[in-house]
Amino acid sequence: MELVVGDLEHMWGLEIIRGVQRVVREHRVGLVLTEFGPDRNTIHYWIDDTIARRSDCIVTVAQLSDSEQNQLRARGIPFVVLDPASEFPEDVPFVGATNWAGGRSATRHLAGLGHRDIAMVSGPGHLFCQARLDGHRSALQAAGLPTRDQDVVRAPLTEEGGHRAALELLDRPQRPTAIFAGNDLQAVGVYRAARERALRIPDDLSVVGFDDLPVAAMLHPALTTVHQPLTEMAMAATELALALGRGEPVSQTGIELATKLVIRESTAPPGR
Amino acid sequence: MELVVGDLEHMWGLEIIRGVQRVVREHRVGLVLTEFGPDRNTIHYWIDDTIARRSDCIVTVAQLSDSEQNQLRARGIPFVVLDPASEFPEDVPFVGATNWAGGRSATRHLAGLGHRDIAMVSGPGHLFCQARLDGHRSALQAAGLPTRDQDVVRAPLTEEGGHRAALELLDRPQRPTAIFAGNDLQAVGVYRAARERALRIPDDLSVVGFDDLPVAAMLHPALTTVHQPLTEMAMAATELALALGRGEPVSQTGIELATKLVIRESTAPPGR
Repeated sequence: MELVVGDLEHMWGLEIIRGVQRVVREHRVGLVLTEFGPDRNTIHYWIDDTIARRSDCIVTVAQLSDSEQNQLRARGIPFVVLDPASEFPEDVPFVGATNWAGGRSATRHLAGLGHRDIAMVSGPGHLFCQARLDGHRSALQAAGLPTRDQDVVRAPLTEEGGHRAALELLDRPQRPTAIFAGNDLQAVGVYRAARERALRIPDDLSVVGFDDLPVAAMLHPALTTVHQPLTEMAMAATELALALGRGEPVSQTGIELATKLVIRESTAPPGR
Repeated sequence: MELVVGDLEHMWGLEIIRGVQRVVREHRVGLVLTEFGPDRNTIHYWIDDTIARRSDCIVTVAQLSDSEQNQLRARGIPFVVLDPASEFPEDVPFVGATNWAGGRSATRHLAGLGHRDIAMVSGPGHLFCQARLDGHRSALQAAGLPTRDQDVVRAPLTEEGGHRAALELLDRPQRPTAIFAGNDLQAVGVYRAARERALRIPDDLSVVGFDDLPVAAMLHPALTTVHQPLTEMAMAATELALALGRGEPVSQTGIELATKLVIRESTAPPGR
């Protein structure tokens, strides 16, 4: 089994590796781990080595190029895309999360608390970011709230990105009373921006994240966030890849596992 | 190259994998990753598979049994111990951190701020915990402060462990004005205990951690902590293992990389 990741800078990397390890341990299969690193070009030889290794199967979090995908297909090495960041042909097996439903549950929660001005810090153009954003908009509409372009600020999925975007939102004459962040790291940045503007969470500003990384529960106040079952997704992707590698019949090759809103301390009715 | 870890529950796992990946990418070497998992027995077959794979070399964060070590030696597979948790024979190559000096720098910083009642939440019996504790005691003595057994509470290296130990310390009639935690996760637990006792950090209680995980800078107030160069340690261990695997002459097979105190916002003079 091979696991390919783009960049281990992301804190969710560990959750994924943990899930893959559980399954390969159970099946007594060795795991080859490859990180492309920040500069994708450094590892142009990866596909050659993988073919030379005669890998049975691959789980990839990294974006494989069309050429890489075709080479794997030509050699009969099945691959499963975990948490797809972009659109793939329909025959490519994948395991993702219900990002649209997760985004919808976050904003439905905020609207249910009585918030009328709900902004979103959204990630860049990844497919899962788009799904979270669409879910957010869908919940706004369902609550009879307007969906205004200016209420969505796009930023990198980092603490710094969340910080900058939140400052932009909070410095407006009519600031939002709630911010839904594209992931937990962005939410950490929103917390910092709120402190810098002397806004208390959740009294003056409600915040929801996405992922439910260990850091979410360590923040003060503890972060309300959309739990993404990363470990279970990695387990499912690995099981699927191993089955495909053994040539077993597989009934379902595209799966989204359910997200779940975890309500902690960072959300409350507006203007308490 | 093989990397063996005990249990990926620990957040520093990612820093280590990142360091190993950097080096194997540079050398264009494949990486096999094995996690023993919480239950060591589940992977009794590991040594057989490793020998069958004819691995060139191994970096291990997990504790290998004497029998495993002997089997690797008999097959001529060199292994390097990363961040040794227990004492090894002198001929076993290792890469660690200057835990004693790091512990000393933490408590010297607190004593320098004027603290006289400095408690420590120490980890269990691991070698690196003992070194941090001895460094702490050494700094107390250097500052002319007493080293009392009751000022050290041992607890698991988790948030929960830090929380429980800190409550024990803070509920004493004469509570400490500063706590040095055995690692950053314990420090997160100390923060929670301080909030529960309505103590402000750093005004009423100074806190120092150890590791400098990403979470340290995300806490509020940002955590003063001893930076452990985990990524660099992993890189050094991997370079060493690869050199041994290629049979190259290696002048130095036991290395400790320097820790560094990172002063943030969680430490201040007592009784501000």
